[in-house]
Amino acid sequence: MLVDVSVERARQSLLDMVVCLPGEEVALGEARDRILDDDLHAPVDLPPVAQAAVDGYALGGEGPDVRGEYTLSGVLGRGRAVAVATGAPLPAQTVAVVAREQVRVEGERIRIAAALPAGRNIRPAGEDFRAGELVVPAGTTVDPGLIAVLAAFGRDRVRVRRRPRVGILSLGEEIVPAGSVPSPGQVRDANGPLLAALAARHGARAAAVETVGEAGAREAGPRLKRLLEQADLVLTIGGVASGPDDYALALLKASDARVLFWGVASKPGHHSGAAVCEDRPVIALSGNPAACAVAYQLLAAPVVRALQGLPPCPKAIPAVCTNSFPKGGGPRRFLRGCAACGPKGWEVTLLPGQKSSMLRSLINWNALVDLPAGHPPLMAGSPVSVLPL
Amino acid sequence: MLVDVSVERARQSLLDMVVCLPGEEVALGEARDRILDDDLHAPVDLPPVAQAAVDGYALGGEGPDVRGEYTLSGVLGRGRAVAVATGAPLPAQTVAVVAREQVRVEGERIRIAAALPAGRNIRPAGEDFRAGELVVPAGTTVDPGLIAVLAAFGRDRVRVRRRPRVGILSLGEEIVPAGSVPSPGQVRDANGPLLAALAARHGARAAAVETVGEAGAREAGPRLKRLLEQADLVLTIGGVASGPDDYALALLKASDARVLFWGVASKPGHHSGAAVCEDRPVIALSGNPAACAVAYQLLAAPVVRALQGLPPCPKAIPAVCTNSFPKGGGPRRFLRGCAACGPKGWEVTLLPGQKSSMLRSLINWNALVDLPAGHPPLMAGSPVSVLPL
Repeated sequence: MLVDVSVERARQSLLDMVVCLPGEEVALGEARDRILDDDLHAPVDLPPVAQAAVDGYALGGEGPDVRGEYTLSGVLGRGRAVAVATGAPLPAQTVAVVAREQVRVEGERIRIAAALPAGRNIRPAGEDFRAGELVVPAGTTVDPGLIAVLAAFGRDRVRVRRRPRVGILSLGEEIVPAGSVPSPGQVRDANGPLLAALAARHGARAAAVETVGEAGAREAGPRLKRLLEQADLVLTIGGVASGPDDYALALLKASDARVLFWGVASKPGHHSGAAVCEDRPVIALSGNPAACAVAYQLLAAPVVRALQGLPPCPKAIPAVCTNSFPKGGGPRRFLRGCAACGPKGWEVTLLPGQKSSMLRSLINWNALVDLPAGHPPLMAGSPVSVLPL
Repeated sequence: MLVDVSVERARQSLLDMVVCLPGEEVALGEARDRILDDDLHAPVDLPPVAQAAVDGYALGGEGPDVRGEYTLSGVLGRGRAVAVATGAPLPAQTVAVVAREQVRVEGERIRIAAALPAGRNIRPAGEDFRAGELVVPAGTTVDPGLIAVLAAFGRDRVRVRRRPRVGILSLGEEIVPAGSVPSPGQVRDANGPLLAALAARHGARAAAVETVGEAGAREAGPRLKRLLEQADLVLTIGGVASGPDDYALALLKASDARVLFWGVASKPGHHSGAAVCEDRPVIALSGNPAACAVAYQLLAAPVVRALQGLPPCPKAIPAVCTNSFPKGGGPRRFLRGCAACGPKGWEVTLLPGQKSSMLRSLINWNALVDLPAGHPPLMAGSPVSVLPL
């Protein structure tokens, strides 16, 4: 068991045991924002055959130029024209398509205003995608454009990575479920809904959001066991604080878990640990909401991404901090910020309420500002390293 | 009826008739990414009472400093100490909390290692939120942090703007639904799934994605009528091309619609129109996929946002284009790009496949590059105006 390790080492010990979940088939309408499980190769040319690029008339004959008069007909041939709509497959022998507004219709005949070259207004087969070409690789997020491409290829079902199921268990005896009314001395669970929403944002879904409540340790073991059956990853909240006699640690040991690390060099988030239990990762997070959220981003979000075969960590980006932070020294610090692109690259503004017990800094939060151990107080305008979330 | 109007004028004619949809109550777990319908004021102080900031002992007595020995007890009083966990409500009369690791326990007594000032390790009531304060205004998107705050306030249901319902109707007689197998001469509907996914990204949901198919005009009228009953906004696809004798225009006129505009000064997207039918907006889009998607973003997405009471249009941002575009002149052009924040602000890369008939440029698409009418060919490194999507 590693104790008080770096964020990187803690995270790696988790990622070392994560295997990408198998894929599953979903209806195309359900595939938005999911992760493609296979490379997508174009199964056919798109368009499959030559199409009209305008509303008008397909003209039969030979090149190079097309001019003069044509006889309207149902079947194309030399000197004949067939009315076509934009996107319609063109009859064989089409040499060009003339736009409706470029002709004069005289009974059964049309007269072309100006000569046009062979091939004009024809979209050749395969203009958009060539049969066999790699359209996007596995691991691509299915966006609306890709949905349209899949629909055009006739794919009404698509193989995507399974969404990780996350089990969430609050260990504090004073914690009651979010929807209930707390008695004096009890506190509503805000961390459970927080983690469920964060996990959903990263493509997972909450298999369960539970609180152990007054039953405490007696109930925690069986609950953890049940969650491990339902979930690919379990997050516990609370009971991580004082080192070797932690409640969460005792629970994991009693559940025959192999502890990976306990304590991380991060403020907030120091009181975090992780274990492997029945081949599944269990991450113990602090009950302090900002600590819980920061440790989720540093340790759990990478697991959620890796379970979907995605790069686990956002790349750190340089940014300028627009406001100041008075505290310096101490351990490596992760402040909650809101980052935006400015005229000189990324700018990040520290959000109000940076105490680990406070929820306020989690509203509009989209970036972590990573300050090294022993950093001086931060001045407005300072360069910082930022993890986009 | 306005003909061949600017994008701005076309859009405004639509926005002039849009009213924000009423709110609805949803379970907190369903509120993620929805739009808050009311200002959120803190109903109580958070934390509601003073809490322990560490695991340790609440100490009874008076300030200014706390030192010496205390007797462990269930009830606090002068010279007495009560064991508390982080986040636990503190007994009245608590003068400070000493961390567990800062004391020596001797039977029924604890001895404090070093004196600590009154108030140490106490989170005062209202430290995070003060009762009555405005937390976030109506119109805020519910993010995970806000979900946690709502949970902490005991809100298990939350009032959010209703999701606009979008009806999508493909008018082309050759178009068959996305899941079906086209006969020769038929084409699968890619635009319907595309628009449904784009609308979902903007907070709406597709009430129906339909194709008129071979039944054509005979079927289109009744279908439109039915969609207007199910949807807040109807998008038609195709049949918009050649001006006054358009199929889509004829359909709208036959449906007693008041036409707002027909034809927009935009390439692609010129073949777009809009009408008001039974007090609902109907936007007619081109059947060419890139034209359909661009006109959706310029005309329909603002309506989807306005229906949710959101600012209808993204703010144009200056960017540098990283690649070139050989065509110049002609009408105002909207190219599909992928924008990212670089060291000197936004950079946008034009995506491959910029013909209006092609789907390719819609993959990974997150920005529209807005080139004015008559623009010269675009060189790599040129400044451009970009609409983030």
